[in-house]
Amino acid sequence: MSYGYNGKILRVDLMTKKLKVEEPGEVFYRTYLGGGGLASYYLLRELRPGIDPLGPENMLIFASNVISGVPIAGMTRYTVAAKSPLTGGYGEAEAGGFWGPELKFSGFDALIITGKTAKPSYLYIHDGQVELRSAEKLWGLETGPAQEIIREDLKEPRARVALIGPAGERLVRYACVVNELKHVNGRTGMGAVMGSKNLKAIAVRGTNKLEVKNLEKFHELSKSLAELIGQHGPNKVLRKLGTPNLVMALNTQGILPTKNFHTGVFAGAEKISGEKMAETILKTEEGCYACAVRCKRAVEIPSGPYATSCEYGGPEYETLSALGSLLCIDDLAAISKGNELCNRYGLDTISTGVAIGFLMECFENGILSKADTEGLEFKFGNTEAMLKAIEWIASRKKGLGDLLADGVKAAAAKIGRGAEKFALHIKGQELPMHDPRGKTGQGLSFAVSPTGADHIEAPHDSPFAMAGPMLERVAPLGLLEPVPTLEFGPRKVRNYVYLQFVWSLYNSLGVCNFVAGPVWALPLNRLVEVVNAITGWETSLWELLKAGERTVTMARVFNLREGLGRKDDMLPDRLFEPLESGPLQGKAIDRKEFEEALTMYYEAMGWDPKEGVPTRGKLAELNLFWLEEYLKEKR
Amino acid sequence: MSYGYNGKILRVDLMTKKLKVEEPGEVFYRTYLGGGGLASYYLLRELRPGIDPLGPENMLIFASNVISGVPIAGMTRYTVAAKSPLTGGYGEAEAGGFWGPELKFSGFDALIITGKTAKPSYLYIHDGQVELRSAEKLWGLETGPAQEIIREDLKEPRARVALIGPAGERLVRYACVVNELKHVNGRTGMGAVMGSKNLKAIAVRGTNKLEVKNLEKFHELSKSLAELIGQHGPNKVLRKLGTPNLVMALNTQGILPTKNFHTGVFAGAEKISGEKMAETILKTEEGCYACAVRCKRAVEIPSGPYATSCEYGGPEYETLSALGSLLCIDDLAAISKGNELCNRYGLDTISTGVAIGFLMECFENGILSKADTEGLEFKFGNTEAMLKAIEWIASRKKGLGDLLADGVKAAAAKIGRGAEKFALHIKGQELPMHDPRGKTGQGLSFAVSPTGADHIEAPHDSPFAMAGPMLERVAPLGLLEPVPTLEFGPRKVRNYVYLQFVWSLYNSLGVCNFVAGPVWALPLNRLVEVVNAITGWETSLWELLKAGERTVTMARVFNLREGLGRKDDMLPDRLFEPLESGPLQGKAIDRKEFEEALTMYYEAMGWDPKEGVPTRGKLAELNLFWLEEYLKEKR
Repeated sequence: MSYGYNGKILRVDLMTKKLKVEEPGEVFYRTYLGGGGLASYYLLRELRPGIDPLGPENMLIFASNVISGVPIAGMTRYTVAAKSPLTGGYGEAEAGGFWGPELKFSGFDALIITGKTAKPSYLYIHDGQVELRSAEKLWGLETGPAQEIIREDLKEPRARVALIGPAGERLVRYACVVNELKHVNGRTGMGAVMGSKNLKAIAVRGTNKLEVKNLEKFHELSKSLAELIGQHGPNKVLRKLGTPNLVMALNTQGILPTKNFHTGVFAGAEKISGEKMAETILKTEEGCYACAVRCKRAVEIPSGPYATSCEYGGPEYETLSALGSLLCIDDLAAISKGNELCNRYGLDTISTGVAIGFLMECFENGILSKADTEGLEFKFGNTEAMLKAIEWIASRKKGLGDLLADGVKAAAAKIGRGAEKFALHIKGQELPMHDPRGKTGQGLSFAVSPTGADHIEAPHDSPFAMAGPMLERVAPLGLLEPVPTLEFGPRKVRNYVYLQFVWSLYNSLGVCNFVAGPVWALPLNRLVEVVNAITGWETSLWELLKAGERTVTMARVFNLREGLGRKDDMLPDRLFEPLESGPLQGKAIDRKEFEEALTMYYEAMGWDPKEGVPTRGKLAELNLFWLEEYLKEKR
Repeated sequence: MSYGYNGKILRVDLMTKKLKVEEPGEVFYRTYLGGGGLASYYLLRELRPGIDPLGPENMLIFASNVISGVPIAGMTRYTVAAKSPLTGGYGEAEAGGFWGPELKFSGFDALIITGKTAKPSYLYIHDGQVELRSAEKLWGLETGPAQEIIREDLKEPRARVALIGPAGERLVRYACVVNELKHVNGRTGMGAVMGSKNLKAIAVRGTNKLEVKNLEKFHELSKSLAELIGQHGPNKVLRKLGTPNLVMALNTQGILPTKNFHTGVFAGAEKISGEKMAETILKTEEGCYACAVRCKRAVEIPSGPYATSCEYGGPEYETLSALGSLLCIDDLAAISKGNELCNRYGLDTISTGVAIGFLMECFENGILSKADTEGLEFKFGNTEAMLKAIEWIASRKKGLGDLLADGVKAAAAKIGRGAEKFALHIKGQELPMHDPRGKTGQGLSFAVSPTGADHIEAPHDSPFAMAGPMLERVAPLGLLEPVPTLEFGPRKVRNYVYLQFVWSLYNSLGVCNFVAGPVWALPLNRLVEVVNAITGWETSLWELLKAGERTVTMARVFNLREGLGRKDDMLPDRLFEPLESGPLQGKAIDRKEFEEALTMYYEAMGWDPKEGVPTRGKLAELNLFWLEEYLKEKR
């Protein structure tokens, strides 16, 4: 049966230097789509369980998808995936920018990288050609200089470069992959896996023309979606303030993570807000390939102690909170500098901020002292300490730097003395800047996300908690009635499960949350039309959401195989403790409600209620019966 | 939130004569749609478990749906539902014709009838008015004369009348409800429930204009669908030969049920075929409201022992096999007469045929003798015996008539002496004319159908076993690869589960299998568009199939509550025995494969693998958590 889509996957073995191009065929693409779907398929098929994520056996997958590369806003993201050195389980992170589309222009849907080069190297892929080149002179360089040299080296200023900084080279377990110096595959330590392979960068460039099956429909969609996105209220807010608009919004709701999640209100919120940024250091709004939303901020601070180059973009909401409110830091310039450093070194800002928060709380509680911190007062609010810690972590400086570079879970275990209660992580991955005590669905989503605490893998609570236009966006899912944000029962589980399929689908189709996500400029049914127009498949929301569910289930099986289970689907203790102040003062996640919701979630997924092992029947239903061999010992 | 659909449900209590009109609101309609979805909701909500299905406590529901009544082909069916007197579980049967649309013209989406009238009565509903009228002079009449008198009585020749014949009055447990004398709600004994309430008929008439939210889109769809249906190859076959085309098709495949399912080839197949009918006794092709397919046959035999009036239509495939090949009868005229008698008396032809097959096999095996049969040789092939048995059953004639009127399960239990092995039923309902030994998916579908063996509740195997255009029709479900008809493993379970949701959806939306069913003239995505155009809902195939799944789950819970469980999800022994001749000679359902598929099916449905009890999480996911109270003792 011919569906009309045919793509290529490039395999690169860094050890043998062998290349191989595979064309897995249309049924494969229609079943797995790309991104997280494609990646989890190959990781399951080809990785032995129990391998060292930082050893050469790990696979590193860069995956675009069946729709990216065409000029429609919000469909340009790509996935980097591997076994995560941070969680020991399924690792996946998405990034926007320009690299994903360029990969497709270069001739490939995805890269599967195995082995390790003897000497630092980088890949150059251009119009179907592949070169493995020396990166010896790049090793140790920050992302900016490295990217510049690569472009010069290739004599191709238009090459798009995804690369790691020193943090990735030094195997910081939450090192990220950076493209255009400001778009990052942030979570689960994909930069460390890249570093472990001695792979500094992947440059892509191409003129491969993507085939669109139904051009007329595509042009019509392209035009109408651009209008839709342009007119959509929340997109206007995003354009004006970027994600930093959330600082004030969440602070007002009492759920702006502050003082390592002790509270949800921050006295200095206004000073680090999107509004303040727009008035002061904002240089330009920027965007990703083909996108008119332009939600990205580039900030510039020409001089002074926190001089910041706009080349590295600017802090997103997550960063403003993780390096700001979470640490009780209200200096926007210092946070911007911290953001720049993270992008230079290739560090995930969320994990970095939470690691520093952990450090500060340990310090304030006497678990660490000035003897450990080179004399620095590591108290909440100490800007200098925050910036210093970033340097230490990125360089794995002996002592605290090295300790924190393994993530808060490992650090707390090493420190002992009760430090674990200050380590805000799930499955070893540090908590993003969303507090489930004010939106319970987020608690479930963080707990069961296969990548650990991760706001890109897991839907936010808001779309299904709210009435009005946002509720209309979820109506095609059959979610017809608002469910209060603080309710944590069967209705919330239902909403979460469906939204999780949507999120998972987005991560397989490279769809951006700001075009089709919580603000839903793009109705789900239009996304189906986009897939249809590009691929020619007579698909449906049913088929696509089942692909989303399939990916969630594959990632679950990956984790089960690695020994993760119910004990790991757990929130940090702090979230079961009451918020200390603000409008939601006293609110906590109820442990019994949480456990009940978790069991119901397993059941709703067709997993056994105890450990969340997908049943044979569910595997059959999802066309995943081939996974049964990995689960035999779990039966 | 306003979706744009608002409908009315009329409640009639026959005991108190009280009427009540309910408007359950748009969220209700969008969640349950109508037909089986609406009916199972009310039966669960309002029936106490354990009641006598033929007692006044039973509810009888007539349900149209949110799309019926508009002039689009194949969307005119309606449901009659109640606790089944044949199975003791969920009872539901659909019929086409004109009654369903007329119910909507009369002002109502559904009728919920409770209690019992002291004297025979009938209902007349016209333009929102409701009258309960005497049916004393109608009682005992065959359907034809009764309908005529009602129309005269009402002075309304255009009234559409759904009514029962003598079989329903006498509580034959597979009595049916008949409209226009030839469209029947055949299965699960809904006619007996109507009879038990002393309700002879429901006449409907109205001029209520149905609101279509998007008229422009609707007209465009209406036009394009008419073309699509007209041009579709299988629809042309249906028009030419009707369902009787299946006689030769299935005989050639070796799965035309013959000699009470001993074999799948019948020497007399040609003589009772659709081709033969077209050449000889066919008078006209007929159709349902707004349908251009015209698959219905009206036959006429002007004189002779089997003189048959075309008023009562003609035998469908099921009848040709049940009163023909199953009994080794190759006389088309006699079968047509048998069909006419069943429609006059209001008997389900499938159950009737299987009951007679049971009788013949008992007779041939010496379990019954001429002493029981008034001297008739009740051997396979005896035409006279077949016609006589219909009379006996319809009149519950003392002896065999009364015995068989309770269905083969009850009859076999009464007879004892090994008769059970000749009783081809599931959950007490007699097997339709499809042999799972040649299409394994049908085995699973018969076994788990909530109404017992039922080809309208359960998808046929063919759409997902075949390649080519039929496979393209199921591609929007994500079913991309053909699965061989005789395979009985995870892939078949997957396909079955998805198709079951589709079938269930059809039974909630009143969609005909011959427009959107196995022959799939209507792509699934067009059905979504139809619902959207009529209701204004921005719905999706996801939402609609989830409604289908919801109904399957509600019916399951209904049955569990009545004590049915895995033991009842079982095929009759004969299907585990080899076919005795023909191209599939030697083929049998493998018991182990069947049991494994059943367990996988439960799991795929989110039911516990042992007894098939929906988990709390699955109830939550389907927005059915209100059912949990009915399942507490099953946990």
